[in-house]
This record gives sequence, C-alpha cells and structure tokens, in this order.
Amino acid sequence: MSAAVNPVLNPDELIAEMAVRARLAQRQLALLEPARKSAALRAAAAQLRKVEAQILAANALDIAAGETAGLSGAMLDRLRLDPARLEGIAHALEQIAALPDPVGQAIDFSVRPNGLELSRVRVPIGVIGIIYESRPNVTADAAALCLASGNAVLLRGGSEAVHSNRAIHAALSAGLAEAGVPVDAVQLVPVQDRAAVGAMLAAAGQIDLIVPRGGKSLVARVQADARVPVLAHLDGINHTYVHSAADPDKAKAIALNAKLRRTGVCGAMETLLLDVQLAGSQAVVAALIEAGCELRGDARACALDPRVLPASANDWDTEYLDAVLSVAVVDGLDAALAHIALHSSGHTDAVVSDDQAICERFLAQVDSAIVMANASTQFADGGEFGLGAEIGIATGRLHARGPVALEGLTTYKWVVRGSGQVRP
Amino acid sequence: MSAAVNPVLNPDELIAEMAVRARLAQRQLALLEPARKSAALRAAAAQLRKVEAQILAANALDIAAGETAGLSGAMLDRLRLDPARLEGIAHALEQIAALPDPVGQAIDFSVRPNGLELSRVRVPIGVIGIIYESRPNVTADAAALCLASGNAVLLRGGSEAVHSNRAIHAALSAGLAEAGVPVDAVQLVPVQDRAAVGAMLAAAGQIDLIVPRGGKSLVARVQADARVPVLAHLDGINHTYVHSAADPDKAKAIALNAKLRRTGVCGAMETLLLDVQLAGSQAVVAALIEAGCELRGDARACALDPRVLPASANDWDTEYLDAVLSVAVVDGLDAALAHIALHSSGHTDAVVSDDQAICERFLAQVDSAIVMANASTQFADGGEFGLGAEIGIATGRLHARGPVALEGLTTYKWVVRGSGQVRP
Repeated sequence: MSAAVNPVLNPDELIAEMAVRARLAQRQLALLEPARKSAALRAAAAQLRKVEAQILAANALDIAAGETAGLSGAMLDRLRLDPARLEGIAHALEQIAALPDPVGQAIDFSVRPNGLELSRVRVPIGVIGIIYESRPNVTADAAALCLASGNAVLLRGGSEAVHSNRAIHAALSAGLAEAGVPVDAVQLVPVQDRAAVGAMLAAAGQIDLIVPRGGKSLVARVQADARVPVLAHLDGINHTYVHSAADPDKAKAIALNAKLRRTGVCGAMETLLLDVQLAGSQAVVAALIEAGCELRGDARACALDPRVLPASANDWDTEYLDAVLSVAVVDGLDAALAHIALHSSGHTDAVVSDDQAICERFLAQVDSAIVMANASTQFADGGEFGLGAEIGIATGRLHARGPVALEGLTTYKWVVRGSGQVRP
Repeated sequence: MSAAVNPVLNPDELIAEMAVRARLAQRQLALLEPARKSAALRAAAAQLRKVEAQILAANALDIAAGETAGLSGAMLDRLRLDPARLEGIAHALEQIAALPDPVGQAIDFSVRPNGLELSRVRVPIGVIGIIYESRPNVTADAAALCLASGNAVLLRGGSEAVHSNRAIHAALSAGLAEAGVPVDAVQLVPVQDRAAVGAMLAAAGQIDLIVPRGGKSLVARVQADARVPVLAHLDGINHTYVHSAADPDKAKAIALNAKLRRTGVCGAMETLLLDVQLAGSQAVVAALIEAGCELRGDARACALDPRVLPASANDWDTEYLDAVLSVAVVDGLDAALAHIALHSSGHTDAVVSDDQAICERFLAQVDSAIVMANASTQFADGGEFGLGAEIGIATGRLHARGPVALEGLTTYKWVVRGSGQVRP
C-alpha cells in the first residue's frame, strides 16, 4: 500500500509526504533529456488507448454516481468520456510531447569586464499543484504540461470524477514507468480526504505553485486561502470598444464573434463600449439582438434600439458566460479607457478602429493581460497564441500573464562561469 | 493636511487609501517617456544635494534618539548620514536614471497564420511596497528603482529613521513635482502607525508586490504573514565545492574571497565542501584559519588541521555572516550535490574545478538562484551582474530569481494587433 493513502497521515502530513516524493522525482525530471520526457508522454498516450475499456468503465461508475447524486446535465457532460473524447486526451498528450522543451533554454548571455560569463537559463518551477473539478481530461492535460516542463505535479480532481481520474492516472503512471521516468512525478491526491485541498493551499515551500482549473467558486476559494502562489484568473470581464473610426462591417463581425462564438469561454466579450460618434452603432446592436443575444444597456444604449434592456449597476461587473451582453455608449477613447480601468477584470480587452493612433493608445493604456486591436477577444487562448496548449490564463501581475503554457511553468537560474575570478 | 496622515483612518483604511492614490499615479507613470522618469530622478538627486543641511539635521535627531534608546553601534552606523553618504545616495539616483528603461520593451514577436501579430511587451508591475529597517538610503534607492521601472511605491521605513526618511522623501517629492511626475508615485507610510506593516502585508489586490529590505527577522515576518507576493531571500547559506581537479591556487583564492572579502553580505560563502581526493585541502584550510576565520568541520575536516573545531548539526544550516565557516569533506560530486540539496538556501552555490564536465554537471544539478563555476560567491550582486543596481536578491521560484533590478520590477502584457480577425 502506498504511503499516499496511508490512513494514519493527517491531510497536512499526507500532502507533505507526497510533496517530498514529488520533489525527489522532480530533481530527476529536471535533468531529463527532452526526448525522454516526450517518450514518456507518448507512452502514456499509448497506455490511455490500450486501457480504453477500463477507463470508460471507470467513467461509467462516475456517471452513474453522478446521476444518482443529481448532478446537472452540464456537469455530467463535463464528466463524461467516450472513445472520441479519450482519443482526444491521448492525442493532446502527443501534441504536448511535440512542443519545444523550454528547460535549459538560455534567456540571455553576457560577459562581464572581468571575464565572468553570465547566463539566465530556464529551469522547471518544481512541484505544482493542480486543483480541478469534474473534467477528467485535466488529469492528463495538466500532468502532461507539468511533465513536459520538468515539473512534478500533485493532481487533486473532483470527487465526482474519482474513478475516471484514477484510471487515467494509472495509465499515465504506466507510461512514465515504461519510459523510465519516475512515477512520483505525477501523483493523484486521494479525494476521500476533503481536507487535502486546504493542506495543498497551505503547503508553502512544499508546493511551489497552485493552478486551479474550474469554476469561479473554486478559483475564488483557492485565491482567498492559498499561501502558495496561485496562477489563475477569476473573471473574464472583457471589453470591446468600438471607436468612431471603426469599419462598420469589421465592428459587427468582431462584436458578434467576441460575444457569441462561444459564450461560455473566459475570452468571451461581456461588455461592448460604443463610441458616441460611431455611425454604425444601431447596426451592431441590431445584429447582436437578432443573433439571439440579450443586451443590457445604459440610457444611451437603450436609446439605440427599443429591444435593449436597461442595465443595472451590477451588469458592468458581471461575467455572464451566456448570450447576454452589457452595452454602454461612451464619449470617446478616454471615456472607454476610464470604463475599462474601473470594470475590467484584466483578462482581455479590445479596440476596433481604423485609426492606428487610437489603437496604439488603447493598447498602451489598457493594463490587462491581453490587449487587442481589431480582433475578437475569443482569440484569448494559448492554442491561438501559438503556445501549443495552455495550463490556464493568468490575470495576476507576477511571473506569467495571459495564456500560460510550458514557458510559464519554468523559472530561471543564473549560471556564472568563471576562471578563478575573485571580487576586489 | 494629506489624507495619508488622517488620524481617523485605521491602518487598513490608511494603506487602502494610499494604495488607491498610488494606483492612480502609477497609471500615469506607466505611460511616461523614459526621459521624464530620468529627469525626475535627476531632479530628486539635485534636491537631495540642495537640502543637505536639512537632511543631516533630521538625521541628527534620529541618531540622538537612537543613542538615547540604546541602539547598537552597528545600528547607529546604518542609520547615520554624513555629506559623503548623502552624496552617495544622490549619485545612486543619477545612476539609476541612466539605466535603460525596460518598460515598453518587446520580449517576443510572432505573426500567426491568420495574420494576428502578437507581442509580449514589458509593463510595470504596479504598486510596490518596500518594508525596511534603519538604513535611510533605502528610501531613495528603492523609490528610484520603482520609479524608473514605472511602478508606484509605498515606503515603510523603520521608526528609528523617521526624521531622516521624511526629509529624504520630501526631497524626492520635490524632484518629482519639478519634473511633472505625480508625487503620489512615491509615498511614505507614517511610522507612528505600527499596524501599517500588517496592513501592507494583507493588502492583496491593492499592493502587487512587497520587497522587505533588512535583517532576517524582518524578512521572516514578511514571508510568514504576507498575502501579497514577496520578493526576498531569507538566508544566504552558500556553498563552495572544491573538486579534486581544482587548481590549488584558484581554490585557495576563491575560498578566501568567498568567505572573507566581506563576511556580512548575503553572497558570502558559509559552507566549504572539500573533495576527499583534493590534494590541496590542508592548504585551503590553513589559509582560511590564518586569515582569521574560525572553521567548524565534520570529522574528516577536523582531521585536516587541529585548529578546525568540531561542527554541530546546526552548523550546516547556519548563515554566520561572520568570519566563521563550516567545512565538510565529501566523497565526490554526487556527495557534494546531496549536501547542497539538503542544506543550501537556494541563494548562491559554487564549484571549483578545472574539469569542465564536473563544472557543467554542478551548474545543471544545483537548483539555486545563482550557480557558479570557478568564481567567488561574493559576485552574487546586481551591480556585479551588470544590472546597474538591485532592489534585492530573490530565492523564491516565481517571477524573478537572483539579483532583481529594473527588469524584475516589470511584468508583461500580450499585445495583439489584427485587421478584423474573428475566431472560426
């Protein structure tokens, strides 16, 4: 029986013990050739395919328990695996295996007048904790991103996905073992211990970074309680400001896409700011309404179309994640900037204008993780940014901002090569 | 009367109010031309020189109060200003004014297949809190580094330096005002409110980063209590491993310099690891003892020289900051790596060897903020690394590691330039 499920350990001891094993495994992982890590990920993908039947059977147990427990249809859908989804998970591992390895990359290099050669070299962060909810694919995705960047990972999934996660984790472990990679690099925190999440959040010095993956209440709890640094975003209250010099067709296309392509993603637009001098405002508003979006506006937005409902003060700070949009008419760029400074969650904000100077002022003055000109906020995504994958999108101000992938899961060390120099 | 000293505000309200003003000032600061920030720093330097008499008079009040309060000689020395020290402070501002501005620098650039142009651009972190002790020069140094990197700063110095800090802060404010830079960018937290430190540490979302500058107890308190990210190092338990293939003269020179050049700096060597096959161990040990260093060794180190005292278990985890050194004899590189993994504080560790492969293995496998080959650990310093200055040395694993200067006081945002792209 593994110490990880030793019932004698209290939650703090359990996490401490798992973290020590993770640290030891990570030290080996940090030194592995990229090819070895890739081989482990490909072996894990092969294992997932090989034990498809077992994983789907385990998932069926979770689905049955979820139905008994009365989980919502949306939650059951997030939980459910089928051959296509499982193949997607396996394929994602292979895609991550093919990404360039950031570990060992030199960020910069200099030679000091005394001959010392200095370089900052990327190294893994160390031990990463992932706290997530019902999606079993996170077990594989997050493990793969951590492994590919040389980090060990403690995975704490939702109790509703316990059988699925155990089955996926077993397949990952088999893949790691097959490739000669220490299996303690990817550990599953037992869900029966509800206090383990609190222990992870408190494990400063043992866990180096926590990444919550899930709904707002999970992220809020993690951000409020963690003594370990957290990489996350709470809200995506994203704005699109349509300036008076916007091309009407582009503005309409961007607004429709930003709001309605997928309403449930964190990059979806939640507030549209229409310049008071924009000629095409009514057309944009009508197009959104006719596409099925509920609009909640300030007085001037309501005056554009009788179908716009009056907004309440709360609307400007609400992430709808639905076919609902708040709309305000603003008096020029400075008013738009002021609205955004007050209400943006610092995730993604965009301007639409054919006036280059207006765009550049917007890009310079909006202080969000992602700022865009003449594009849909729905591009806020690691894959779209060419990162190959993402562990999440961060709106904090330190370490990594916006979509975070392998590079964001590394730190650096200073490497100094001398020939006997002493300091005068 | 400024709201900052409004006696009606409790400490949390006081810090919140100062942080709001800092944030507003910072938004302007973030957009300033480099030349304007430099002009403000040069004007502040000129002001410091102009009001030299007032600053020295204020400092005399602090020194008198410190003597009455029975401060130690070392503490009084850290507190004391004289014309030469004040000129040094003014000159440091001018040096920081001359550093390249990191704000606006593009970290990378790419064009996606859909034509979106992506760039990560450095931006200031935001509002930085500096918590420090008796050295009044920190008031000017830290303010200048924050200002030069576009950050607003809340300065909380020690109560023993209250008059000096107020006088220096007044000069800085005058310089900022003269250059048209918002004076709320550099604010002094009133010392009469002892609870203000706790309020700063709790001000997550209001203050973006805390940098403690002072002794170990201050740093430990800040690290233990802060809900705001902290950039710091607690200890500099730095090792030098002298491999069997080390040049004897280089090894001796490096060991003497790493330990004794200045014993009170965080980059000083605290533990010497001598390879069991190193021929020159006795000479290194003798040279250190004859230079006035107390050596505390394990059994094999004691056998090298009768003047080596036996070490206790504690010695391997002690930062002496004095002419005291722990010495162990180790069985090759792997034993040295194991000792360092167990006892290093992750600050600076070095190897001395003419065997390049040994050096490279050490540099790869030691996971400290700074790793060195064939150089004195005393080079662990922002100035020596060519950074021009440093706000501190960080041993945390996120954001910035090792010496931190202007670049480490920035973060980045993603800037996306499109031409009407929508996501399929």
